[in-house]
Amino acid sequence: MPNQALKQTQPGAVAPSSLIAALAAKYRSGYSLDQRFYCDDEVYAADMRAIVARKWLVAGHVDRVRRKGDYFLFKVGKDSIIVVRSDEHTINAFYNVCRHRGSVICTEPQGHVARLTCPYHAWSYGLDGALMQARLMPADFSKADNGLHRCHVRVFHGFIFVNLSEGAPVDFDATFADLGPYLDFHGLADAKIAHAESYPTDANWKLVVENFVECYHCAPSHPEFCSMHPPQALIAFGAGPSSGPRDAVDAYLPVLRAWEARAGALGRPIGTVDDGPDSSHLRLLLQRTIREGFESETEDGIPAAPLMGKRTQFDQGRMYLSFSPFTQLVATNDFAVLFLFTPRGTSSTDVDLYWLVDGKAAQVDVPKMIWGWDRTTRQDKIITENNQAGIESSRYEPGRYSEHERRVVTFHQWYLGQYGYAV
Amino acid sequence: MPNQALKQTQPGAVAPSSLIAALAAKYRSGYSLDQRFYCDDEVYAADMRAIVARKWLVAGHVDRVRRKGDYFLFKVGKDSIIVVRSDEHTINAFYNVCRHRGSVICTEPQGHVARLTCPYHAWSYGLDGALMQARLMPADFSKADNGLHRCHVRVFHGFIFVNLSEGAPVDFDATFADLGPYLDFHGLADAKIAHAESYPTDANWKLVVENFVECYHCAPSHPEFCSMHPPQALIAFGAGPSSGPRDAVDAYLPVLRAWEARAGALGRPIGTVDDGPDSSHLRLLLQRTIREGFESETEDGIPAAPLMGKRTQFDQGRMYLSFSPFTQLVATNDFAVLFLFTPRGTSSTDVDLYWLVDGKAAQVDVPKMIWGWDRTTRQDKIITENNQAGIESSRYEPGRYSEHERRVVTFHQWYLGQYGYAV
Amino acid sequence: MPNQALKQTQPGAVAPSSLIAALAAKYRSGYSLDQRFYCDDEVYAADMRAIVARKWLVAGHVDRVRRKGDYFLFKVGKDSIIVVRSDEHTINAFYNVCRHRGSVICTEPQGHVARLTCPYHAWSYGLDGALMQARLMPADFSKADNGLHRCHVRVFHGFIFVNLSEGAPVDFDATFADLGPYLDFHGLADAKIAHAESYPTDANWKLVVENFVECYHCAPSHPEFCSMHPPQALIAFGAGPSSGPRDAVDAYLPVLRAWEARAGALGRPIGTVDDGPDSSHLRLLLQRTIREGFESETEDGIPAAPLMGKRTQFDQGRMYLSFSPFTQLVATNDFAVLFLFTPRGTSSTDVDLYWLVDGKAAQVDVPKMIWGWDRTTRQDKIITENNQAGIESSRYEPGRYSEHERRVVTFHQWYLGQYGYAV
Repeated sequence: MPNQALKQTQPGAVAPSSLIAALAAKYRSGYSLDQRFYCDDEVYAADMRAIVARKWLVAGHVDRVRRKGDYFLFKVGKDSIIVVRSDEHTINAFYNVCRHRGSVICTEPQGHVARLTCPYHAWSYGLDGALMQARLMPADFSKADNGLHRCHVRVFHGFIFVNLSEGAPVDFDATFADLGPYLDFHGLADAKIAHAESYPTDANWKLVVENFVECYHCAPSHPEFCSMHPPQALIAFGAGPSSGPRDAVDAYLPVLRAWEARAGALGRPIGTVDDGPDSSHLRLLLQRTIREGFESETEDGIPAAPLMGKRTQFDQGRMYLSFSPFTQLVATNDFAVLFLFTPRGTSSTDVDLYWLVDGKAAQVDVPKMIWGWDRTTRQDKIITENNQAGIESSRYEPGRYSEHERRVVTFHQWYLGQYGYAV
Repeated sequence: MPNQALKQTQPGAVAPSSLIAALAAKYRSGYSLDQRFYCDDEVYAADMRAIVARKWLVAGHVDRVRRKGDYFLFKVGKDSIIVVRSDEHTINAFYNVCRHRGSVICTEPQGHVARLTCPYHAWSYGLDGALMQARLMPADFSKADNGLHRCHVRVFHGFIFVNLSEGAPVDFDATFADLGPYLDFHGLADAKIAHAESYPTDANWKLVVENFVECYHCAPSHPEFCSMHPPQALIAFGAGPSSGPRDAVDAYLPVLRAWEARAGALGRPIGTVDDGPDSSHLRLLLQRTIREGFESETEDGIPAAPLMGKRTQFDQGRMYLSFSPFTQLVATNDFAVLFLFTPRGTSSTDVDLYWLVDGKAAQVDVPKMIWGWDRTTRQDKIITENNQAGIESSRYEPGRYSEHERRVVTFHQWYLGQYGYAV
Repeated sequence: MPNQALKQTQPGAVAPSSLIAALAAKYRSGYSLDQRFYCDDEVYAADMRAIVARKWLVAGHVDRVRRKGDYFLFKVGKDSIIVVRSDEHTINAFYNVCRHRGSVICTEPQGHVARLTCPYHAWSYGLDGALMQARLMPADFSKADNGLHRCHVRVFHGFIFVNLSEGAPVDFDATFADLGPYLDFHGLADAKIAHAESYPTDANWKLVVENFVECYHCAPSHPEFCSMHPPQALIAFGAGPSSGPRDAVDAYLPVLRAWEARAGALGRPIGTVDDGPDSSHLRLLLQRTIREGFESETEDGIPAAPLMGKRTQFDQGRMYLSFSPFTQLVATNDFAVLFLFTPRGTSSTDVDLYWLVDGKAAQVDVPKMIWGWDRTTRQDKIITENNQAGIESSRYEPGRYSEHERRVVTFHQWYLGQYGYAV
């Protein structure tokens, strides 16, 4: 039975279209979504306006823009954002659209510039976005009114967050400040990028997210990933704290508690963050052990890089931190992996991974470090594209989730909540 | 003048959209269809629902699934159908969509499996489609209710027919049983595939069909094909029994009658099937001679394979059998060619050919066997794509058919009849 | 403030859609157009009907069809036009659509034919478009009614103009006759094609035009082009006669007047054509000097070919002639370059260049001749595609034009005037 209790409750939410309303009315808790949520251009456009454009998305790590004038592009939907350092303390984000005739200004994915000069008519903007030079303009033209369109930006422990809201965005500190101690311990503000890789995926962004927030598929699909973890942890905590079946949780909890005591004694902040579906960003922070006898998430458990951050010794633990459905972080003791899931089209999502190591690390074994997540993400790309292809069938219908996929249901609750529906 | 007598008469027909109604009102008998029938996405979607999803389509020959666990995929529109043998006597057809989250289950075009296991979360189905294994599901989850969605399937003289109707399909036996003796004589149930080739064509499915059901284009376009046939037969019977101009029919009929007597004496069932436009499948069965002195449809008339079926000697004849506009069969004495025309998009149609030989044939000269139809189908692909390109022009308008294209007109009558219009 | 004075005034104009009306209401003079004018499929379709299909477009030069039976194809949107010579004095233009079933008739971009024979069913048309042969047609079929659909065509000083209007087109002579003396002096009727090149551009046709009618971008984007011209001329006359800022015009005018006296004494017709936005074709003819010391628009100023037309000596001048926004001509003393800008899709425009030299020229240094415009057009392709990409951003908004882009504003006035809006 479709959920009859469904009602619009969030007064601040974007008014959904009649299509979204009709689809939301058919939603059934514990089941996958209606086909059109995954395949329809109108739903995608609504998602971009109501959700993607209102969230703080990590665009990258400060290591990409160390020097004044360093920039990189972050592409979301049909938008291109220039993330550029203007001085030692300031990183700016601008829409990559010249205020003159709309040309793209930066055409390379990253680079180093003294000014942001449009290649078309040479309008030239400072690194603060102010229009510096525009030849032969009418007398009443105001340079002050023609700076680059700013994108909201915040740097937080090394992560560059952008927010594409036209108006005031969700308060950043109220949303993320409590994560500070965890990030600080891992030394992420001072980390550096040891490797990056892209896995563009031909699937709707919600399928990419759904795939990442459950580990029900780990056993059949990810042999490398499973080899690095305690089997009971994957079942008990694979989709969030105590997200698995009761007996699996009961079996793993003692192991976890013992580790928390050990790791806490070594200075690691112990704790969990588990936002509910009413939250703005659906954050999740979860810490647990890796495979017994392993010191890192590598093929043989031997670290690929020096200890990160404030650590003094290996503690056999790992942190999973979801800043939002669009930004995920996995941190083992010697490296962290940043995952960016960025919608580009109805069935096209950018999946970009950055492997971070300690900023002072002299030696990094890159093949060893990427062994697990590079293979796992290649597998996830195939899996998710097969999921999209099957959902496009005329005979697809929403299917029942297992007890191991509770976080997907939470994600759906959050997703529909963004349109104002409490389910 | 558009046909004023047009009216909706078939009470069981799918209610056509207002677009179809408007286009049907402009239909003029003896002329090609309005541009939008060939180019419009809405018409294509209507065709898929009202016609393609309601017909028995040949998906392939049993030789593709000889052993238990053999399967192949048959793709129609955005649907993928798994055709799989579950035991000596049973071939099943399932939608290639996992009941869990909708992933494609089989990702290879053909293969051999013990079970149908989804690569995503390892839900595992028997070869009968029953859900066997689904880990960690809620207590109230019913495996019995989560078998694969079945597609109607019937095996008839070696041909595997599927029907994508959600409800009860058109009665199979009432539709096809009378073809049995012809197929039996040709030994098609026991045939084997000697060669297969695909010719995906960027054109609307109706143009692919129209091209196949007339031989007005044979002289200018198909030198190889024409070289294997009596010229007068192509004119008189190229588009169906006595479909050509009166004088050509009169000239060829005595030749045909003499051959019927000879071939009948050798055991061949003589007869014709010629469904009218009111029929469900617009079947056509037509038997006639090949080029004088030839024993097979090959470059030099010499057979490429041993005699098929119940034959004891070559009879210089051939059978053309259209099970529906989507499935065609041409059988010479030593091999048969199965043609599958399957809509995949508004201007995208799969054209797949299978050359069948006697199941006991030890030696087959494949290049000799495919010489005629491989070249002819390559030519048809180009011709039909040029037809689509021209129809997309702003200045295209329906044109008059020749006396040699009567079967195309019958096809249009049948096509509009599927929407409930008698024209 | 949007222009409040906007009103529909041209009684003969095509009635615009409500979308065009809504967008036109937002138009602000001196600013680039609304995003949807550049990106929307509905606007593109309206442009094709209301503008492209009603203008005289140059399809090519007569040198492409010297002999009877020579033809080439000119593609506009989804239409393909056969331009074919039927006798010494006649060039015809036909829609490349067979009157039988709509197939494309000519499949090669150019060729030589005795008749226009459809490759599908061999319907055969004379070079005058008359249907000559159609086998086996019903008795009441009229060949006379089934000639190829004609496209209006006029040859004028070597240029083949076509007009896709269904009804009577804009009067050709009233529109173009006054250009005769200029074309005559340059010998364009007797010119020959020395080189051709295509630069298909992924951008809306209006962006291709806007780019070509201003030289504000020349300094940053076109070093080769700038090197061949007096800097003050590019500023003063880069976007039309005296189109630049007052002081630049004042500085260059004495140079221009002196050249006009010199060139006029050598027989060159001196004059300017500068249609206003109310004109049907927005023509522009402008003559001025090239770089001091140069005799031709080449890298070193040395000519690449013999003098064209009626010239007796080099005069250091050049002519720019825009027949319409779709057809541009640049003529230096020894060669001319014809630019065809042809819409093919919402963000797809064909850009085809033909380099013309004197019909009697024995030696042409092709690399020298194409050095300037080949490089410049490659640059323009990149520039214009970047412009399109930026405009697709959610944050694009119409921007202010410089004083150096006045012709773009005129083009917009003309464009909106085609829909009946005076702005």
